Amino acid sequence: MKTQASYLDASGAKALLESVDTFLFDCDGVLWHGANVIKDAEAVVNKLQQLGKKVFLVTNNSTKTQNEYVSKCAKLGFQCSQSQVVSTSFLTVQYLKSLHFDKKVYLVGSTGLSRELDAAGIRHIGLGPDVMEGNVFDGRLDHIRLDPEVGAVVVGFDSHISFNKILKASSYLKNPDVLFVATNRDERFPMEHLICPGTGTMVASVCVASGREPVVMGKPSQQVFEALRQQHGLDPARTLMVGDNCKTDITMGNLCGLRTMAVLTGVTTAAELQRLRGSERADEAVQVPELVLPAIGDLLPHL
Amino acid sequence: MKTQASYLDASGAKALLESVDTFLFDCDGVLWHGANVIKDAEAVVNKLQQLGKKVFLVTNNSTKTQNEYVSKCAKLGFQCSQSQVVSTSFLTVQYLKSLHFDKKVYLVGSTGLSRELDAAGIRHIGLGPDVMEGNVFDGRLDHIRLDPEVGAVVVGFDSHISFNKILKASSYLKNPDVLFVATNRDERFPMEHLICPGTGTMVASVCVASGREPVVMGKPSQQVFEALRQQHGLDPARTLMVGDNCKTDITMGNLCGLRTMAVLTGVTTAAELQRLRGSERADEAVQVPELVLPAIGDLLPHL
Repeated sequence: MKTQASYLDASGAKALLESVDTFLFDCDGVLWHGANVIKDAEAVVNKLQQLGKKVFLVTNNSTKTQNEYVSKCAKLGFQCSQSQVVSTSFLTVQYLKSLHFDKKVYLVGSTGLSRELDAAGIRHIGLGPDVMEGNVFDGRLDHIRLDPEVGAVVVGFDSHISFNKILKASSYLKNPDVLFVATNRDERFPMEHLICPGTGTMVASVCVASGREPVVMGKPSQQVFEALRQQHGLDPARTLMVGDNCKTDITMGNLCGLRTMAVLTGVTTAAELQRLRGSERADEAVQVPELVLPAIGDLLPHL
Repeated sequence: MKTQASYLDASGAKALLESVDTFLFDCDGVLWHGANVIKDAEAVVNKLQQLGKKVFLVTNNSTKTQNEYVSKCAKLGFQCSQSQVVSTSFLTVQYLKSLHFDKKVYLVGSTGLSRELDAAGIRHIGLGPDVMEGNVFDGRLDHIRLDPEVGAVVVGFDSHISFNKILKASSYLKNPDVLFVATNRDERFPMEHLICPGTGTMVASVCVASGREPVVMGKPSQQVFEALRQQHGLDPARTLMVGDNCKTDITMGNLCGLRTMAVLTGVTTAAELQRLRGSERADEAVQVPELVLPAIGDLLPHL
């Protein structure tokens, strides 16, 4: 049995490097906070590659395209090519392509998704603001027309989320033949004084109104690792998932049979980790990582 | 044991009228559809009162004040005074008053709630549009300041629901001392071609982002009947709850030990009712009404 949530020391780091070929890194909360690199994160990622390790960045964020991620990485000092980045916007489009989807998408999302759809030649409507004028109960809905060509509702992160968008997404989903795809269900991004709502809040509102549940692309769905495994022939037992969010990153790692390591620079706190270790609930036990590191930069002295 | 979901006939109607003193009517889907009266609904409500029955209108809708409901009733031909109307906007304010609440409310809701709060002298912020400009990840949240005087987040129906509102509501709720009150959790209002999102969609998004659960005022919460029982000394066994939404109206009736009757002019369909009758799930069995009537007007010939 694996040890549970033990803090990585020098000998543990040595053993880890010998037994792992591939490192999967979540991005926000592990490598950076928004536009700011977390100390020494780029040095760790670059050094691992110099040591011959495979590195992939796997993010639930759907607001950027793969190319935009590569640009961001370059700007922040990470050496990464397009094939090393797996975002949920990319996965969503891959998923639709795998189904030979040729209808229109009603999109609740950002430009990351719309540009990936454009690049794949998939038509879409819904991007950008769409707000209700006046009182919804005074016949204001009469003018709303649904597009009969829509064959899928895709919900990702959308800071323009609105009543009209929830209404249209749910209305399309009345038709059971219309696909329902969500990039991820992250609940929130904690900030110092605020809670920034995650994609999960947008997905939840469409689920409640429509009474339907989506196919989810992002972690903890195993879709992410499956895509990488198939393309790059990865060995789960020699792959480490590094994440800050135990509910998404570590759960996915455990479900896929990967090694797992949590860092404490993001969503999951040390106190929460302690609570998860003691939990007897199956959905919480699966969130417990094998290893813990205060921050990704703490790996640097061991490389 | 009560009979289950039997269609009301002439002898059943006679027995019902002899054994019931008080009629509680849900409004939308029972008495009216938006601005249109359902056939003979006003005649039934007025005739029952002429026969000496007590009548109350109990609605989960939070977009109007009690006074605005009385005006609407008058306009549509229903004889109703203010004390006969219980809306969730009214209940919410009563609830806050019962706690001697003297801080500020962050309101996700409509003018029904804001006016009831005003009338009770409870300060509030948040009414009306509040949309995000630009990209949320580029420091756009830095300017958001929380009001330290906020002591409660109230969520009702809000057609201006937005990212900023979900963000602010959840951020206030980071403080466990801040109350979280929801008018109701109705999922949707079905329309011919569209699904109109209910308050439950707005509540769900705040729940997901904040990780908290609200105190709920509306049906199926027993709060509604408790308020009426205390004020008017109603006998549950001689009170009939009439509703179109089995999940809210009929569940509340059953939980409070009332007689129950479903009409088929709103949310719950005959097919769904049939399914509920056969269900072994406790949360579905409690949705089964004692009686069924195609439409409220069908009671008129028996009065």
